[in-house]
Amino acid sequence: MGIKQDVLTTAKASKKASLVLGNVATGEKNRALRLMAKNILKNAAYILRENKKDIKAALARKMRPSLLDRLTLDSGRIKEMAASLESVAKLDDVVGRIIQVRKRPNGLIIGKMRVPIGVIGIIYEARPNVTSDCVALCLKSGNSVILKGGSEALNSNIAIFKCLRGALSKTSIPEEVIALITSKDRKAVNELLKLNDYVDLIMPRGGEGLIKEVTENSRIPVIKHYKGVCHVYVDEDADINMAHKIALNAKIQRPAVCNAMETLLVHQGIAARFLPVLARDLKKAGTEMRGCKKTAAILKGIKSATEEDWYTEYLDLILSIRVVLDVNEAIDHINTYGSSHSDAIVTENYDNAMKFLSQVNSACVYVNASTRFTDGYEFGMGAEIGISTDKLHARGPMGLEELTTYKYIILGNGQIRT
Amino acid sequence: MGIKQDVLTTAKASKKASLVLGNVATGEKNRALRLMAKNILKNAAYILRENKKDIKAALARKMRPSLLDRLTLDSGRIKEMAASLESVAKLDDVVGRIIQVRKRPNGLIIGKMRVPIGVIGIIYEARPNVTSDCVALCLKSGNSVILKGGSEALNSNIAIFKCLRGALSKTSIPEEVIALITSKDRKAVNELLKLNDYVDLIMPRGGEGLIKEVTENSRIPVIKHYKGVCHVYVDEDADINMAHKIALNAKIQRPAVCNAMETLLVHQGIAARFLPVLARDLKKAGTEMRGCKKTAAILKGIKSATEEDWYTEYLDLILSIRVVLDVNEAIDHINTYGSSHSDAIVTENYDNAMKFLSQVNSACVYVNASTRFTDGYEFGMGAEIGISTDKLHARGPMGLEELTTYKYIILGNGQIRT
Repeated sequence: MGIKQDVLTTAKASKKASLVLGNVATGEKNRALRLMAKNILKNAAYILRENKKDIKAALARKMRPSLLDRLTLDSGRIKEMAASLESVAKLDDVVGRIIQVRKRPNGLIIGKMRVPIGVIGIIYEARPNVTSDCVALCLKSGNSVILKGGSEALNSNIAIFKCLRGALSKTSIPEEVIALITSKDRKAVNELLKLNDYVDLIMPRGGEGLIKEVTENSRIPVIKHYKGVCHVYVDEDADINMAHKIALNAKIQRPAVCNAMETLLVHQGIAARFLPVLARDLKKAGTEMRGCKKTAAILKGIKSATEEDWYTEYLDLILSIRVVLDVNEAIDHINTYGSSHSDAIVTENYDNAMKFLSQVNSACVYVNASTRFTDGYEFGMGAEIGISTDKLHARGPMGLEELTTYKYIILGNGQIRT
Repeated sequence: MGIKQDVLTTAKASKKASLVLGNVATGEKNRALRLMAKNILKNAAYILRENKKDIKAALARKMRPSLLDRLTLDSGRIKEMAASLESVAKLDDVVGRIIQVRKRPNGLIIGKMRVPIGVIGIIYEARPNVTSDCVALCLKSGNSVILKGGSEALNSNIAIFKCLRGALSKTSIPEEVIALITSKDRKAVNELLKLNDYVDLIMPRGGEGLIKEVTENSRIPVIKHYKGVCHVYVDEDADINMAHKIALNAKIQRPAVCNAMETLLVHQGIAARFLPVLARDLKKAGTEMRGCKKTAAILKGIKSATEEDWYTEYLDLILSIRVVLDVNEAIDHINTYGSSHSDAIVTENYDNAMKFLSQVNSACVYVNASTRFTDGYEFGMGAEIGISTDKLHARGPMGLEELTTYKYIILGNGQIRT
């Protein structure tokens, strides 16, 4: 009963505050972001002290090293948090922008005005820097945000949150535009997901289990930031040197991120020339390869890929490889096993490039470039809150504009309908 | 078990067919629409015969006259169905349109390509013409559609559906792009709402109960077409003659539709001059008025409006009236009691017009025009599948463009990330 009431009170206050925030001037929002950055830097020692508590508890529970790394803050990461707040202050404000204006024969002028979504709930796992990143983007786009971070980062999140809220108290923006749910009880999330009268959007960021649970239990629209099973398809007509560089970059430049390649598809007509040289460089970089039968005929001694491999996001120096008949089989493979994130074709053949662009059902479809570019900064959006793998509202990198919606504005001079 | 399997089989076939439809040429889609129109006209007698069965059953169950009217087809309505299919064939195809193209410093060309959403499930009530309207818009926008109409219109829907599918058999488009769930068991809808692997979007069109049930049980994203509690606010600085015409038009021109006015808000400084003349004309048109205390002081003998009235969509010749202090109280009232559909201010005051435009949280915000214009045709979209009262993906009238999503296309010449 206590938790239910707490979450409801928080959500109501967020909604109320969002109506104010939606009309705060850009300058005041930017001033708040800069004050937040200052407060983070000023209280770095305090944040690190609280973070130590989380690390100690994590070590006692034998947390995996990769997760422990995500949880750990140091002075460099704190500076990055502050820099990120500053950089969002520099971005253009999209709220109030008017687009697609048209004039109708009856004289009505009809356009779309960009407006905040309202209240956004973000449910995430161990990384404490997500706390400040999400606050920055939601504040700038005029949305109240309700954060629910992983309990393993609770002390760190509370410390960061206090710095951010403290900054707001020196502005005209109501403090309730940012909220942190501190209960460790799972019930808190379940209660939040029922509050469709107050919360407009839920974004779960984390593992498959978290995302599934949120999707199945939410009465609020959800935009998922799900896995990236990304492909590079090397066509028969590829520039073999370009294909080599792109495949290598997509796999090894940063294997632990969602836009890294997990499966390489190679046209049967180029596989015997292409694969041995690539395999040598992949091996040199420490990459484990798992191939189909045709791949194994070329790369002797390679481990067999199972059906399960084609669905897997390794996030590691592991690559599954399949030799395909042609571009059609490549497209079928991607639409069957992929996660609709980012997929690339390398080819000099115009028809195949066009076919790939129109038939691959992914958020980002590339011709002759590495999938690693799927990123708000690389796309020129300035910042991103994540990469949507959903189809509705926003796909791919989500920046400030994707954190808004629109309303139609209709300007008349007395028009009535006859 | 039978129903569960049936719905699953249907959804899988829809998904598969949608991959083909997404790449069908515009000319072939238009040919299919025109063949559908012909088939509807050719089989008019058959459709009317089947519709009679539904009407007979409805009369036996003493269906309300307004619902019975929606259920009833005649040769005029059948011609309208055919004309609507023809008119969608004439609209521009949005699938494949490339927008927002930019070039990045590294030479990458990044744009958004409009693509179909995939499979859309539409759950609706008595009106059989919704069947052909939804098929037309989904087909043209490249989406498979799964229809689940009200059981009271089942014979009519089956007849119309057969005509539409029969037309597809003469084209290269797989028949499975349109499907009709004919089970009368509620379980069919519940099963459909679980199939998030195959269905991309659910649109419930109907009463509050239907929409609530769908929203609470769906694992698939839902766009709601919910009620319209629309307001006209007459500001102190209104052109009183214009305000009179707009208020009258918004209420009485077609009271049974969602964009008709339900509540009139009047600035206290103009109420005594404005209300008596308007009330006379509203009364003449047979409108029942319910007012706040201040209204009652001006319009003697008027019925009192209750708190409940401010939330109510009458869809009838009933109007609630409230006298407000100023534009701020009007905005508060609308954001508190409204349904975020369509709201208008009548004013010659620039500041109040701008404040109303930016602070009213509705899908369509008007200055000096009747709310009755909220409509895909009136907005210049050619057609609409409905009017979204949700905030995500699409707000207000939804046409062909709103039935698509986008994918990023990225054209490179060998770019890798460093």
